[in-house]
Amino acid sequence: MSTRNADPDVLLTDLYQLTMLQAYFDRSMHETAVFELFVRRLPRNRNFLVAAGLEQALDFLCALRFTERDVEDARRTGLFGDEFLAWLARLKFTGDVDALPEGTVFFADEPVLRVTAPLAEAQLVESRLVNIVHFQTLIASKAARCVLAAPGKTLVDFGMRRAHGADAALHAARASYLAGFTGTSTVSAQPAFGIPIFGTMAHSFIQAHASELEAFAHFVESQRGPVVLLIDTYDTIKGAERVVALARRLRGRKIDSVRLDSGDLAVLSREVRRTFDAAGLRDILIFASGGLDEHSVRALVGGGAPIDGFGIGTALDVSDDCPALDCVYKLQAYAGKARRKRSTGKATWPGRKQVFRRYADDGRFERDVLTVEGDPQSGAPLLEPVMRAGERSAGPTLATARRRAAEQLAKLPERLRRLEPCDPYSVEISAALRSLAARVDEEFT
Amino acid sequence: MSTRNADPDVLLTDLYQLTMLQAYFDRSMHETAVFELFVRRLPRNRNFLVAAGLEQALDFLCALRFTERDVEDARRTGLFGDEFLAWLARLKFTGDVDALPEGTVFFADEPVLRVTAPLAEAQLVESRLVNIVHFQTLIASKAARCVLAAPGKTLVDFGMRRAHGADAALHAARASYLAGFTGTSTVSAQPAFGIPIFGTMAHSFIQAHASELEAFAHFVESQRGPVVLLIDTYDTIKGAERVVALARRLRGRKIDSVRLDSGDLAVLSREVRRTFDAAGLRDILIFASGGLDEHSVRALVGGGAPIDGFGIGTALDVSDDCPALDCVYKLQAYAGKARRKRSTGKATWPGRKQVFRRYADDGRFERDVLTVEGDPQSGAPLLEPVMRAGERSAGPTLATARRRAAEQLAKLPERLRRLEPCDPYSVEISAALRSLAARVDEEFT
Repeated sequence: MSTRNADPDVLLTDLYQLTMLQAYFDRSMHETAVFELFVRRLPRNRNFLVAAGLEQALDFLCALRFTERDVEDARRTGLFGDEFLAWLARLKFTGDVDALPEGTVFFADEPVLRVTAPLAEAQLVESRLVNIVHFQTLIASKAARCVLAAPGKTLVDFGMRRAHGADAALHAARASYLAGFTGTSTVSAQPAFGIPIFGTMAHSFIQAHASELEAFAHFVESQRGPVVLLIDTYDTIKGAERVVALARRLRGRKIDSVRLDSGDLAVLSREVRRTFDAAGLRDILIFASGGLDEHSVRALVGGGAPIDGFGIGTALDVSDDCPALDCVYKLQAYAGKARRKRSTGKATWPGRKQVFRRYADDGRFERDVLTVEGDPQSGAPLLEPVMRAGERSAGPTLATARRRAAEQLAKLPERLRRLEPCDPYSVEISAALRSLAARVDEEFT
Repeated sequence: MSTRNADPDVLLTDLYQLTMLQAYFDRSMHETAVFELFVRRLPRNRNFLVAAGLEQALDFLCALRFTERDVEDARRTGLFGDEFLAWLARLKFTGDVDALPEGTVFFADEPVLRVTAPLAEAQLVESRLVNIVHFQTLIASKAARCVLAAPGKTLVDFGMRRAHGADAALHAARASYLAGFTGTSTVSAQPAFGIPIFGTMAHSFIQAHASELEAFAHFVESQRGPVVLLIDTYDTIKGAERVVALARRLRGRKIDSVRLDSGDLAVLSREVRRTFDAAGLRDILIFASGGLDEHSVRALVGGGAPIDGFGIGTALDVSDDCPALDCVYKLQAYAGKARRKRSTGKATWPGRKQVFRRYADDGRFERDVLTVEGDPQSGAPLLEPVMRAGERSAGPTLATARRRAAEQLAKLPERLRRLEPCDPYSVEISAALRSLAARVDEEFT
């Protein structure tokens, strides 16, 4: 599926990955390294995160190769030796990956993904793995908030144009669908991922016609799929009246919905609903868009505005109130020894880790325990093997991930489901992990 | 150059573009349309914007084709007729483009780019054109603030991993270089755009060795380019002392700089500088990174911290304090008649427009006048022809754009060069444009 949008070149990485690899190569430092990808701190305005992007991360690892052109480009920098470059040309990713299945809710310090591989391979993939997993997780987490704010409503990703480039546009559609959106307006998300696509019309369509009514009539006539008329180009209420006039004279065709894209949506949606209902057009749905986010959607839904669906664009695709997560990929063990970084304010928990989730009697998440792998803990372990020796397991599909996200959102403690910051979910650090950290600190300086 | 990162498929667009095209095709609405791309309002925390992304926008227009596969994917949606699909398969962009040259400083309401083309062509390209120009303009505008905050310092884009996907990572490197950054850590930006690349080392490199000193020695030994040692993995001051110890025993190799990535950079940079100077290592430069943005960089520079260069990552690549601009692409004329949208709070100025910039006696920008094309005004017109009948003019290179940006930043009124919001720059709407808007409002309802 995702081959349609083939991964960009392997040189989309930070230069230091390659200069470090040169050093590892020179000294044959090829023992096994363990890196974990995690979020150091939850942002103030996120009570939880939703793991996403694993499928594309595995695509990237499977496809990882230095083409002749990549090697030549690397050579031209003058920074690398011939033997090293020849070795790069043969490099493949041969490691193991364990990860949270996509759609899993997670919290700070919990590994989202672990790479176990020869040091150079595990190091090389850092920048792009973070780039892939960070973005989809960011968007799925934002989208989940929208889903919680508008239970039962149709939610459509409208953000393609202001997403940060092509890759972001396509993968925002995927991540938001995974988190429970109904679909997207981004056409290529359908062939790429099988995501339902939705379309309305633009103001320019109305403007290109001599009158709004003519534009409506023309659009209805030409469409083979659902007809959504945009009614706010000149005056929303007059637009609704024109829809009524048009609906009365239609034979064998129907208007499915209208879209409101400006003005006071709470007020206008009521007036438009009244106009349609009075004309017996109870089936025409009302769709709203225009600078919406989870807060404005919640306000509209909570206030009882008769809006059936929402297009959420920029706020979703750039995660406007939190456009980045403190997501990192850190060395946790090398050559059989646990390691950790102790930089001020940035210390990490060492070693290969597992997360156990415990549930309350009502089936909701109660608390998580972060511990070293192999330390027995009650609860369900969250990290699963997804790649062994460079071969991915038959992975879960997007549909499975979407189902998982829905189940997980339903099991969130009530306070975490609110949009406002709340008391953080408890992630306990096990005694075994604390004592490992103390031992590592004694050994490395 | 940019062919290395070929544009994604033409279906990376909003569905409504295609459903509108079906309607235009059905009724042979192929007269000339004029669309302009502009920013409706400057964000509160931007005093100006820097135009960027034009080169990629033109790449996109030149390459625009529906492949057989695209047509087949479109067919499968069931939304389009056979004749229309056959026509799509033959579609090329044959229009004209006028634009602000990349690197031009601009303000709200001023067209960044104008497309004049048969309606369907001009409409189809909306989503991706906005997607391209919005992102690079967003990043160039953020980067320009960093450049103004740190005059004379080396500034390097470090944001690849938390940029929103692959495309954002690569083009953030381009946009920040255009705005005056020294370079980027993103390797592929060099073959793609000729941008200087910079690399240091990661904490994992230190951690993978038995000791920090051993890691430093090994790195120095293996590098063919500049050597930058990361000294904060365990303790920054001890790290600096180890650099001194290593430097004393090096023969024929040298340490170019060190990087501080955590802690109080103002305090640590002074201590590190003192340590090096006391050891006669005055040539070792100090480079800082770690959650920096234009504000923290300005504070460090203003406070006299002896830091020679800064790596700016996430804050730059996601434009963290303003992750999106209110950037739109609106129909301004069709079939020879000026048009405009009047939606509440979203009305636009109609017609083909030009921007004239007037200069004060000291050579700084004084004010702009937005008017209809052909209306004589004093000052320098900003929009230039860049494509005619689908053929691009021999475009300005990235180097030219970077030079232009530097010149423009130097000519900004002093208050606009500050990081704080200021009295807005004056963009005057000409009498001719106001009267055109009034005429259009009478005609279309």
